[in-house]
Parts: sequence; structure tokens; C-alpha cells
Amino acid sequence: MTEEMMELVNGQVFGVWFLIGAALVFWMQAGFAMVEAGFTRAKNAGNIIMKNLMDFCIGTVMFILIGFSLLLGEDLLGFIGRPGFDIFTGYADFDWPNFVFNLVFCATTATIVSGAMAERTKFLSYCIYSAVISALIYPIEAHWIWGGGWLAQMGFHDFAGSCAIHMTGGICALIGAKILGPRIGKFTKDAHGKITKVNAFPGHSIPIGALGVFILWLGWYGFNGAAATSIEQLGSIFVTTTIAPAVATVVCMAFTWIKYGKPDVSMCLNASLAGLVAITAPCDVTDAFGAIAIGAAAGLLVVFGVWFLDNKLRVDDPVGAVAVHCLNGIWGTLAVGLFATDTAPGYAIADASGNTLTGLFYGGGFTLLGMQFVGFAAVAAWTIITITISFLLIKALVGLRASEEEEIIGLDVTEHGLASAYSGFSIMDVSNTMAMEINQNTSLGTEDYEAASEVQKNAAISVAKVLTPAAAGMYKVVIIAKLSRYDHLRKAMNALGVTGMTVTQVMGCGIQRGAGEKYRGIEIDATLLPKVKVEVVVSKIPVEDVIDTAKKALYTGHIGDGKIFVYNVGKVVKIRTGEEDFAALQDVE
Amino acid sequence: MTEEMMELVNGQVFGVWFLIGAALVFWMQAGFAMVEAGFTRAKNAGNIIMKNLMDFCIGTVMFILIGFSLLLGEDLLGFIGRPGFDIFTGYADFDWPNFVFNLVFCATTATIVSGAMAERTKFLSYCIYSAVISALIYPIEAHWIWGGGWLAQMGFHDFAGSCAIHMTGGICALIGAKILGPRIGKFTKDAHGKITKVNAFPGHSIPIGALGVFILWLGWYGFNGAAATSIEQLGSIFVTTTIAPAVATVVCMAFTWIKYGKPDVSMCLNASLAGLVAITAPCDVTDAFGAIAIGAAAGLLVVFGVWFLDNKLRVDDPVGAVAVHCLNGIWGTLAVGLFATDTAPGYAIADASGNTLTGLFYGGGFTLLGMQFVGFAAVAAWTIITITISFLLIKALVGLRASEEEEIIGLDVTEHGLASAYSGFSIMDVSNTMAMEINQNTSLGTEDYEAASEVQKNAAISVAKVLTPAAAGMYKVVIIAKLSRYDHLRKAMNALGVTGMTVTQVMGCGIQRGAGEKYRGIEIDATLLPKVKVEVVVSKIPVEDVIDTAKKALYTGHIGDGKIFVYNVGKVVKIRTGEEDFAALQDVE
Amino acid sequence: MTEEMMELVNGQVFGVWFLIGAALVFWMQAGFAMVEAGFTRAKNAGNIIMKNLMDFCIGTVMFILIGFSLLLGEDLLGFIGRPGFDIFTGYADFDWPNFVFNLVFCATTATIVSGAMAERTKFLSYCIYSAVISALIYPIEAHWIWGGGWLAQMGFHDFAGSCAIHMTGGICALIGAKILGPRIGKFTKDAHGKITKVNAFPGHSIPIGALGVFILWLGWYGFNGAAATSIEQLGSIFVTTTIAPAVATVVCMAFTWIKYGKPDVSMCLNASLAGLVAITAPCDVTDAFGAIAIGAAAGLLVVFGVWFLDNKLRVDDPVGAVAVHCLNGIWGTLAVGLFATDTAPGYAIADASGNTLTGLFYGGGFTLLGMQFVGFAAVAAWTIITITISFLLIKALVGLRASEEEEIIGLDVTEHGLASAYSGFSIMDVSNTMAMEINQNTSLGTEDYEAASEVQKNAAISVAKVLTPAAAGMYKVVIIAKLSRYDHLRKAMNALGVTGMTVTQVMGCGIQRGAGEKYRGIEIDATLLPKVKVEVVVSKIPVEDVIDTAKKALYTGHIGDGKIFVYNVGKVVKIRTGEEDFAALQDVE
Repeated sequence: MTEEMMELVNGQVFGVWFLIGAALVFWMQAGFAMVEAGFTRAKNAGNIIMKNLMDFCIGTVMFILIGFSLLLGEDLLGFIGRPGFDIFTGYADFDWPNFVFNLVFCATTATIVSGAMAERTKFLSYCIYSAVISALIYPIEAHWIWGGGWLAQMGFHDFAGSCAIHMTGGICALIGAKILGPRIGKFTKDAHGKITKVNAFPGHSIPIGALGVFILWLGWYGFNGAAATSIEQLGSIFVTTTIAPAVATVVCMAFTWIKYGKPDVSMCLNASLAGLVAITAPCDVTDAFGAIAIGAAAGLLVVFGVWFLDNKLRVDDPVGAVAVHCLNGIWGTLAVGLFATDTAPGYAIADASGNTLTGLFYGGGFTLLGMQFVGFAAVAAWTIITITISFLLIKALVGLRASEEEEIIGLDVTEHGLASAYSGFSIMDVSNTMAMEINQNTSLGTEDYEAASEVQKNAAISVAKVLTPAAAGMYKVVIIAKLSRYDHLRKAMNALGVTGMTVTQVMGCGIQRGAGEKYRGIEIDATLLPKVKVEVVVSKIPVEDVIDTAKKALYTGHIGDGKIFVYNVGKVVKIRTGEEDFAALQDVE
Repeated sequence: MTEEMMELVNGQVFGVWFLIGAALVFWMQAGFAMVEAGFTRAKNAGNIIMKNLMDFCIGTVMFILIGFSLLLGEDLLGFIGRPGFDIFTGYADFDWPNFVFNLVFCATTATIVSGAMAERTKFLSYCIYSAVISALIYPIEAHWIWGGGWLAQMGFHDFAGSCAIHMTGGICALIGAKILGPRIGKFTKDAHGKITKVNAFPGHSIPIGALGVFILWLGWYGFNGAAATSIEQLGSIFVTTTIAPAVATVVCMAFTWIKYGKPDVSMCLNASLAGLVAITAPCDVTDAFGAIAIGAAAGLLVVFGVWFLDNKLRVDDPVGAVAVHCLNGIWGTLAVGLFATDTAPGYAIADASGNTLTGLFYGGGFTLLGMQFVGFAAVAAWTIITITISFLLIKALVGLRASEEEEIIGLDVTEHGLASAYSGFSIMDVSNTMAMEINQNTSLGTEDYEAASEVQKNAAISVAKVLTPAAAGMYKVVIIAKLSRYDHLRKAMNALGVTGMTVTQVMGCGIQRGAGEKYRGIEIDATLLPKVKVEVVVSKIPVEDVIDTAKKALYTGHIGDGKIFVYNVGKVVKIRTGEEDFAALQDVE
Repeated sequence: MTEEMMELVNGQVFGVWFLIGAALVFWMQAGFAMVEAGFTRAKNAGNIIMKNLMDFCIGTVMFILIGFSLLLGEDLLGFIGRPGFDIFTGYADFDWPNFVFNLVFCATTATIVSGAMAERTKFLSYCIYSAVISALIYPIEAHWIWGGGWLAQMGFHDFAGSCAIHMTGGICALIGAKILGPRIGKFTKDAHGKITKVNAFPGHSIPIGALGVFILWLGWYGFNGAAATSIEQLGSIFVTTTIAPAVATVVCMAFTWIKYGKPDVSMCLNASLAGLVAITAPCDVTDAFGAIAIGAAAGLLVVFGVWFLDNKLRVDDPVGAVAVHCLNGIWGTLAVGLFATDTAPGYAIADASGNTLTGLFYGGGFTLLGMQFVGFAAVAAWTIITITISFLLIKALVGLRASEEEEIIGLDVTEHGLASAYSGFSIMDVSNTMAMEINQNTSLGTEDYEAASEVQKNAAISVAKVLTPAAAGMYKVVIIAKLSRYDHLRKAMNALGVTGMTVTQVMGCGIQRGAGEKYRGIEIDATLLPKVKVEVVVSKIPVEDVIDTAKKALYTGHIGDGKIFVYNVGKVVKIRTGEEDFAALQDVE
């Protein structure tokens, strides 16, 4: 009787914990929103948050209509659950906790993709993608694994979703980012179209991104632990779910320190997530050693993945979603076959005849590993096929990518009429700007002013003195331009031979056209528009060329494209050489 | 015996969950702080956070002293609980969990108001309000509903507080915002005092605001679920608490997309909250269909509410607190009477004789709806009367509103001596600036530079070239001013006929007066003061008029009010027309 | 039998709650990261987050290897637990929940220190410190208290770690900050090296810091409550854990309002934490009155502590970690001896013979207080000795402090190659700048423009009009400099007699040297480098002196150290006096 009572007790205790776990997984939506916002540019922050919010909300609607029954309905041939509307017709006997729990898992799968496709995807297209994955792609493969489908029947083990959630989301992320193409400026190409350089686009708020990682880590205790059914099992899951990401982060720190010279903050934050993804499938079947090994590999895999996408696949994944979720999702799925050990409490992996199966490194041979591989391959194939069709259909029907103008200006204002997610702050996109082309060693040999020669002193600090304004030959050109034309302008100036400019963010205040954006239903008067002020001083380069080039670079056909002021700055004494010539203007900034 | 044991088990399980739920409701304080900070301006961020922190802390003190016993003390005539000090005199037998749980609910009610009254309320007055609502207004009406008072006896149903918490807080928010009046610049008036325009004040950090919404949504699982007493009931509450906000958000997105042309980020975030508020009262008595209907209506109601306050009531509610909490609180309260259904697990709404009552749309007729209406009306009347008296008394005794100077400079520095909540960032208030008055269509007909005529090119990019500095007639006036005088200056310049200026945020570094602010007890040397640099180029408008006007606009009677530099910029060639005249300065920026 | 069953039930219920509590304590890592990032400067935000992330991850590795067994292994002479590797050798029977729970507590201890040593500690040295405290210092003293060591045997009571965690972390923070020395610019010294002034360094994001406080407060319900074993005890712990910080915050607000003239936001946030720290040891043994008293004292103690460190100890603790954790940790430890009362549910403090002991103010005499004092003194002595040795060894071996250049530029870029934690934002360090030296009363007597005399008007707004550019004697010098040299430049200009300058953040765009930083393995092209533009107008001071001084201040021996432009601004009419002289340039900004 005590046995029976304990079962009742555990039913109550772990029933409530199951729902608490679901709430923690819901909380991961906030984590994804913060990670993705923090690791992308400020001009798209509102858009990425909106995508993260809407994939949960649209996903909920789709999950009610079709997804839930495809996942957990009565099994049909091992492939899908029977579609139905029990949630409406049989609410009194509905499986409420499982609905919520599976819904938040589904939403996690969907939201992974937004990061990889950030900063250039049309909002409408993202909404459609989000509906498709929540309605069909995820529920069907999850049915195979968790809904009594063929993989479940075979003995495939994916406790909390390295395969069902993360790999699936990660594959969608990879294919989506590939079909979309890279953000403007991500890859520099030479005249033959060959990529000569990968450019970094630093995230606009590391603290917000880091907060997102902490949120996700917290949520993961629910993600991995919610389905536990004993204190022992839950405790062990907490242990492995803590060790793997911690080790992954330490390994990544050491590796980036050695390889890149400094410990990389955002990569280490990614490594924590990588460790969490990798331990997700095996969290209930590994011991401490397994968790350490799985985490260590994850910490390296994420660095490799980021490098591989940038340098080999040439896929632009702004937040590292593919390296984190796809690669480590695969790794975690296979790791079950390597590290599963029956010293883990509540261990229950067995073949159809009930024989316990353990991992390769724990003497279990290749059987379990083989089953894990089959599961990985089947789900990967399903996901690749369905998501490719989905994205190509969306592309054909409504288009997948925002226009160049929208991308440069930012999706916040173009997609949502949100002038800035940080109203009142001066923000400038410093990422898609490439180096001017000449390089030189700038050290002058001494850091001690007194010991420096006059030539060294003057070379370090150039002084342009305007003695009398009457003399000719030297001009300061001040250009007020739209932010979105800055990159054109910079390139055009560089092509002309200009080697340095001073750039200031200013606000243009003036009469505006009537068609303003709406913020909460109220038209915004964009009377203080962010602009950029570029100052160039030229002498050898004809000032008329500078003006013509600037006009061409800024022109879009609207009054207000820009303003150019030219100042005759007269005679100049370059103190560097003591001479009165103009050559010194070839200085670097 | 099993029955009895199960009761004991459930007592333990749901006893712990009750406290976990209370912790989640505490967490909603962070959500309110982030939402309200993110959706208001940076210059008041510290103040709004301080208000959110202090209403919890002051509320705790008041709840100990009087609030808790008024709420849960022995019922006196159905109206109040008997005041007492059991927490001090009978600690050993005190009802600890209920104290914490009701305290965090009380604090939620209080904190709703800070958003609607943000950016212009005196801090001291807010503290007093906060004490009053926590000590008297909330505990008494909550006693009616949850403390065994007359509404509870009647059968009124408000499971988690659409009425007791959100409507009450929302009504206080509405009345507070109305008595306070709008923020400076919110409504543009014509000469007769008629409002001709509503101006948008975009929030300073959408990511922080969105984080707040996610925090609130997470906390709501505790808010709605904490009082559940079975897995089934808790599961069903999680289902309805997930569906309603998700549907509300989708509906709001679709509606703003259609109505305003683009899906509005901050309105959708509000819609999530609206759905949560609306499902709060009926969360335990509705099914999936009810949750969908309630959510869909909430998603529309919040858009309507924001519009209605701005355009009809002319009440300035910076964060949409009234639309979210007041309107949807009422909606949720009444929705119980429409959608209550006994298919919900643990359903227990009954009249005094024990007959089960269901909602109008589920065949229950008007009985329950009528009771819900009585509850709504009674609590609304109580709240309207008591809060109006409270605010008017506070206004009479210490004043309710910050001075105009304080409001323009920002409450962070004026109320708390916090020079900036974002020290080191350049921040500018871009909201309370109105458009200059002439409008025109700015399209020039072509976006292709090569195809554009010379006239089109020159009209798009004006070039002011200073050929020789000797010629007269054109001046560049550079004005360095305090941030708080910028709006005066802009209006004065506009009145003078200036149509465009370039505005830069600069820092003034100079000798300061001694009476500095204190940060953590240390006097801050405000040696780097944020200033604004305004550049105007004039030709037809006499430069002396510009100087006089600027001096008048900037004057406050202190050394350091500003500096004006005038440059004679000589002869100008306007390339637009090829002529050498000055008319082209009438350009838009 | 019911008794036995209840024990089983409670074992399950509180077993799961124990793990949920551990997850909440993990969440406090996010709180520390946000508090410390928000309350320091933007240029070190990535570094402080990295430190918070890594101390958890490195701590986990050390805790696996040695820390856990030292803490909870079989007791050896009351001093340490027997080192061992049960986690590897006996995973099937491992105490998983206790491992996770104690690990997150250990990480809390370690992370306290990062705040006090923020903005100037070498990252490598911090990693080493973090390993040492997690491996040895914390586990051994925690073994005394919680692992069955000599303090536990004696009857010392520290329920959740005022002493074991917070005081220990706080002492390490104090000693670390002392050995490190203050941040550059924190203390102004006169010619004799005597400190004449303490300077405030405002935090760069109060909202992020406040979020951290809310996170910590939420986490504290797990921190204090996780080890509870009955609903009554847990409920009481929630009550005391809510009351103490709330009262502390209210008291601190009132005190700073009275003492400093305005309620200080960041100090009140610190006070909430102070109240939480102080209630940590006695949370399970005090009643409401005790919690109020403990909280009130904590709210004062934190203000005193911040003042004491700044003004007496001259220790620079950027986030107030010592005042919060060290002082209030001691206070909480001793408070057990003052306020412990057996009206608290589950009360169990007893001496070796089993006699119940209560606090001094509850009639228990000095016995318990004496024991608490012994515990405090022993742990303090252990911590002082071991951490001092550790820091001095680290200092000798690898150095503890970043170089002056690294500190001024910021640790994000110098330690991690992260150009900015807020890419795209204009950020400037406004803190380590001191006042220029002359002070004066700037009020001109009237705030009404019409009533002001011409002299008053002109004194308030100075106008420098350049009538003809031919006249000599007045120069505008524009200096473009690296951000890190701004402070040198400002001081040098001030020494020369300059009293006001206009400072603008600009971006220098030019050809850069090749050795760029790496972000996620990709070299960053620092083509848009943050620079500062300083504008000075001089007449009496020879312009050549300004140029020479600026060159000297900016020189570091690299091309690109800066640029100086000199404009001859000709004749000037100072409207203040109507005269055409230059004296008026002695204006304040």
C-alpha cells in the first residue's frame, strides 16, 4: 500500500513540478528574445523582440488548431497523431498539463530560427514560417519521438529535445539563413565575386544578451527536469544540466583565449548555451564524467561552428544559432549513444525486448549509438525537406527578405514604424563599414614625449592651422546626410582618395513630410531625425570632385537627402614638417 | 483513509506551490518596473524604478500595520476585517503563507498606478498614495471579495483579481492621470485651447519594456495559479492563462497592422498584458473557447482604450495602464458571467443555496452575469470615491505634480539627484518636440541619379559654398544651450521663420557652482553637463533677430545659460539653381 | 503510520522544493551580473559580466574536483570533510540535490567579490581567485557551519549564510578592493598626497542594476527557503525574508532623504540587498518584530558602510559589496543571538545538551549571542588570513591590477577585444573627471527676462560674434583626441587657465593599423573609432601654448594620437558689456 501511496504522492508532487517546469520553459522565450536582441544591432531590436513574442503567440494558435493533436493524438502508423479538437469538444477531460508543456516546447523550436535569420527577414514571412513549424514540422517529428511514434517504439532516446527541439530548430535556422543570404556588408567580395573577408557585426547590448543566457540557463532546469518522476532522477538531471554548460564555458574561454588571444565574451555566452543544448537529450542517462565530456566537446563545437559558417559555408548567422542549436543538438543526440550509463537514477533505455542498452563508452556497444543515429538522420531529413519547401514557398509567395533600403535603415522603423527601440539615444550602425584600404605600422618608436624628436611629435599629432582665411587651396567639406546613406558616402570618399574623416551623430530638425509612422496609433513627428555629419578636409583632391561624389552618393530623389557646406580654410601650416604644404593631409585619422 | 491522506498530501504539495506562486507574484514587481521604465523616457528611468521599488516596500509596512487585518481579519458586517496585530502578538500561530501571498497581491495593485502617472508625479506624493492604497483602499475591497466579505457571501467570482487587483489599480491610474494632467507637449492646442493634435512619446527602451512583459507573463502563472488546489485545476488555469494573452497578441497584431499599416510592437506587448488581465478573474472557470474569446476581445480592447484615452478622454497614460488594467479588468470580471462553464475542473461557482451557476453563453442565464456586474459596480464605486478623495487631499497638502522645470529636466535629477540613469550615454528627449509648420511633398520624381535633371539633383542635396569670407549677408549662428531649454529655443526659432537646424548633443565642461547633487552620499561634480548645440544658417532673417530671440529663449537668470557664436559665412552659391542668392536657405532639413 | 507517511510525503515535496530553491539561487548569478554591470561604467560591462559568468563555471569545475568533498565529506576533526571523488566513483548513490544546492551557494560567495574589485582587476587574476575561493576558502568554513564541523557541533546558527556566504564574500571583497587600490580618479589628492575629495562614479544603467536587485530578491526566497522542511517554516521564512528588505529600503530612503536632501535610488537598491543579507542567518528563527528590527538596522548600516569605506577606509568599492555583504553579513550573524525566538515555527536552536537557546532580546541571555560571536570571529579570521595570502600570491605571480591604460580605455576592449558592450551607442566616461577649480555663485538675481537688466541678460548668455575674419587675437582651437587621453587633456587645459570647453563625442573614420581585436573569432575593423572633439576659444592665453599643451597631453607615440585645427576667429564683440574686448572669454561654460 505504501508503494501505491507513494505513486499517488509522486503523481501530485511531480504533477505540480511538471507545470512549474513548463512555466520555466515559457520563461526561455524571454531568454531567446534578450539573447537575440542583445547580439544584433540596435536598429532591429524592436523587430527581433516582436518576432520572439509573435512566434509564441502564433504558435499557440496553431498548436490549438492542429499541432497538439498531431503530436499527442492517437498514433497513426507511427507517423502522426490523429488530428482532433479535444481541446474544444472534451475540455472537461482534456490533458491540460501536457498541452501547456508541449506548447512551450514547440515555441522553443520555432524561436531558435529568429536569431539566425535576424536583421533581414520580412516580418510577414517570419509569421508564416512560425505558423508552419508550429502546426506541422515540429509536431510530426516530435510525435515520432515523444508521441508514441516509430522512433519512440524503436527505443530512440531524447529526454528533453536535443534532437526534437534544438537540432530541428537549428536546421531550420541554417536553411533559413542560407536561403536568405548574408546581411549587407557581412562578406567583402573582390571584383570576381570571391569573398575576401568576413566582417564582424558586434551585438548592440552585451548585458541584455548575457541576461538572456542566464534566463535560458535557469529555464533549462525546467526544460530538462520537468518530465522527471523521482527526486533522484531530478537531482541527477540538475547535476548534469549544471556541469555540462559550466565545463563548456570554461573550455570555450580557454580555447578562445589561446586561439584569438583574448577570452571572447559573446562566444563564452554561446558556449553556455551549447553545453545546455548538448546535455538536453542525455541529461537523465549520463553521469558526471559524461556531462563533463559532453560539455567540453560542446564548448569547442560552438567555436568551430561559428567559424565554419562564416568561413566555409558562408552563411551569416547573427547570433550563432546554428552552432549552438544545430551542431550541439546533433552532438547531444549522438552523445546518448556514447555516454548513457545505468548508474544514472531511473535509467530506463531498453530495446524492444526490454534489454537495457547503454552507451558505447560504457560497454554498451554500438546498438544504442546506431539507434540514436537513425533518429538523428530521420528527423534531420524530415526537417531539411519540409523547411526547405516551406521557405521556398514563402519566398515565392510573399518574399523572404526585406529590401536593401529597409535592411540599412533597420527593420524597427520600416516594419513596425518604431523610429528607434532606444528613443532619445544616439545610435549608429558601426558594423557594416569596412576598412579603408591602406595599412601601415603606426608606432613611432617611443611613448615618452620628452624623448620623442620634433618629427615624431608632429607626426603623432598633426596641427592644421588656418592663419589667414584669404589663402586658397584647402577646403573643409561638411556633409549632413541620412544615416542610411553613410556607408555609400564613406565608400565613395574612399574611392576618391580620402583617407580620413570625422563623423558625428547629429539630429536634423526641420519641416517633415506628412506621411509619418504610427506609434501606438499616434503619428510620430519625426522632427528630430538622426543624421550623420561627416567632415573631410581636402587639399590635393579637388573640392568639386568631393562635392560631386558626395551628391551622387547621397541622392535618393527626395528633398532632404542631405546638405553640403564648403569652407575655404586658407593657408595651412603643417607643424609636422615645419613646411607650409598640403601633403600632410594624407594622414590617418 | 486514502481520501484523507490525499488531502494531507495536497495540503503539503499545494501549500508549497502557494508560496512558490507568491514568489512569482513578487517577481511581477520587476516586470512592472521594467515595463514602465522601458515605455517612458530615459530622463525619468531612475524615478520610475524607485517608485516601483518603494510601493512594494512602503506597502509591506502598511500591510503589516493595518492592511492585512483589514483584509483577512474576522469579518465585521461583511465590510472589513477586524484590525489587529496578530503578526506581532501571535506569531507562533500566524498565517504566514497567506500574509505573504496577499501582500504581493496588494503590491501589484499599488504598482499599476505608477505607470499611468509616470514622468510628472512628485515622488513624495507617490509615496503617500502608495501608503493609502496599501493600507485602506485595496484591503477593504479585497476583503469583500476574498476575505469573507459581502461579495464573497453573495457568490461573486474573481479568482485571481481582474476586479480586486487590476480594475482597482486601473481606476486609480485613470483618476490619478486625469487629476495630474498630461505631460508637457502631449497635446498640442490651438489659440483657443482646443486640442488639435496628440503627440507620441516613444519609450526609451523597447527591449527593457519587452523583458518586463515576459516577466509579468511568467509571474502570471503564479498570480492565477497559486490558489489552485488540484493538478487538474492548475493545469486548466495554465491553459487559459496561456491561450488568452497569446490570442490577444495575435488579434492586436492583426488589428494594428490593418488599422495603422504596420504591426505595432509596444501595442502588442500591451495586448499580451491585456489578455492576461482579462483572463485573471475567469481563469479557473473557462474552457479553451472561452479563453480564446476573452483574449480576442482583450486584444481589441487595449487598442481601443489607448485611442480612447488619447483622443476622447484626453488623459495621458504613458504606458497604457488604464487600457490594460482598468478596461480589461472590467472585461475579465464581466466575462466570468458570460463564459463560466462547469467543464472547467474544480468548478464551484454556486449561489447561496448551492445551485451551480454558469455563464450566459453556457446556458446559465443572467444570474451570474448580474452578480459579476454588482461586484464590478461596487468595487468601482468604492475605488473611485476613495482614490479621488486621496489624490485631492494629497494635491491640497503637498501637491501632486512636479514643476514644469522638473518635468522638462527629468525627475531622475530633480527628485533623486541622479544626473542620469544611463551615465555616459548621450540621451536627448526627442518626444515633446512638435513639427515645424509647413508641409510639402518631397518626392522629386526619380530615384536614379543619372536620370535626374540638374535641378532635381541640386534640390535634393543643397550645397552652401563659402567662396570668400569677405562677402556679407549670410550667417551661421551656433548656440550652445541647456537641454531643458531646447524646446523653447526650437519654438522661438520656428516662430522667427527658421525652417531647419542641425542639433548635436555635446558636453559642456567648465567650472560649476558648488551646490551639486549627491550620488550615494558623494557630491557629483557635474563638470561634463549635457548640452545641446544648435546650428542655424540664416540670410533673409536678420542675424540680430536670431540672437535676440535665442537669448530670450535661453534666459533663466544664471551664468551658464548658454553661449552664442556667430560666423560670417560670406558669399554663398546655391548649386540648386546655379544662382548666387539666399532663397534656397528655405530648405527643409 | 500517518506520521511516517507524512515524513515520506514531506521528503518528496520538500525534496523537489529543495531543487527548485537551488535553481532560484542559480538565478541570483544573473542578479549579481546585472547589479554589478549596471552600477559600473559602460566600458567595463562585458568584463564584469564575463567575470560573473566565469566564477560560476570555474567554481563548478573546482567544486567537482575538491570543494564538494571538503564541504560535505566525512568530517575530519571538525575542520574539513574528507576529500574524495564520489561524484565519479559512486554516481549511482551520489547525493545529487545536495551537490547542486551547495554548488550554487558556493558560486554566490565567489561572485560577491567581483563587484568590489570591478573596473580594474585583471581578468586572469580574477579567474585564479575564483578557483581558490571555490576550491578551498569557502568549502572549509562552510564545512564548519553546515558540513558537521566544529561550529555546527557547538550550536552556531546560520540558516542560509549571512556568515558562511555573505560575510565571507564581503570580507574577500574588502581585502581585494584594498589590495587593488582605488580606481583612477576616485580620490583626489593634494600636493602632499592627502585625499581631499571623494568622487562619484555613477553606474551606467540604473534599470539594469535595479533589475539585478529584483532578480536577487526573487532568488533569495530560494536562498533562504530551500532548506525548509515544513509549510509553516517555509511560510515564516518567506515572511521574514520579505519584511526585512522592505523595512531596510524604507529606512534607507528616509535616511538618505533627510541626510542628503533627496532619496537616493542606487542606495535604496543596495538597502534592499542589505536587508536580505541581514535576514539570511536568522530568517528561520525570528518573528515579525525581529525582522523589522534587523531590516531597519540593515538600511542604516548600508549607508554607513558606503560612507565609511569612502571616507575612512579609503577603499573603493564600486557597487557597495562590502557595505551590503560584509557588514550586513556580520550583523545578520550576530542578530541571531539577539532576536532568535521559539515562536518561530520549527525552532531548533539548542546547546549540546539539548536545551533550547533563544536570543538576548527574547530572554535567552548571552549564551547564543556568544556562540554567534565565536562563529563570526572564527570564520572572519579564516577568511582574512586565507584570502590575504591568496591575493598577495596572485599579485606576486601574475599581478592583480590592470594597467592604467587598460583601466582608462576600459577592460572590455583591453581584456576581451570587445570594442564596446553597446556597439553603436555613443558612450563617454563622465566619471573620472574632476571640477575645474574656481567656484562662484551663478545666480543673477532674477529669472524674468523682461525684468533683467541688459547686463544681466548679457552675462547669462554670452555672444561671441565674428564680425570680420581679418582681425587677429582670438582663436578657436579644435582638438580631435582619443577618448583615453581626454582626462589628461582636460587637466592640462585647466592648468593653462582655460575655464570652459565644449566636448563632443565623434567617430574617427580612417585607415587603421592591422592588429585589430577579434570578436567571435572575426577581426573587427575598428574603422569607426570613438573619439572626442574638444573646442576651446582663447584670446588672452597664447594659442601656441594651447597647441603645445594639447600636443603634450595627447602624445603616446602613435600616428593617430590626435589632430588639432586652429581657426582665427577675428574680431569679437562681447555683448555682455558692449565692449569689444576679450576678457569675457573667462566665462564659465
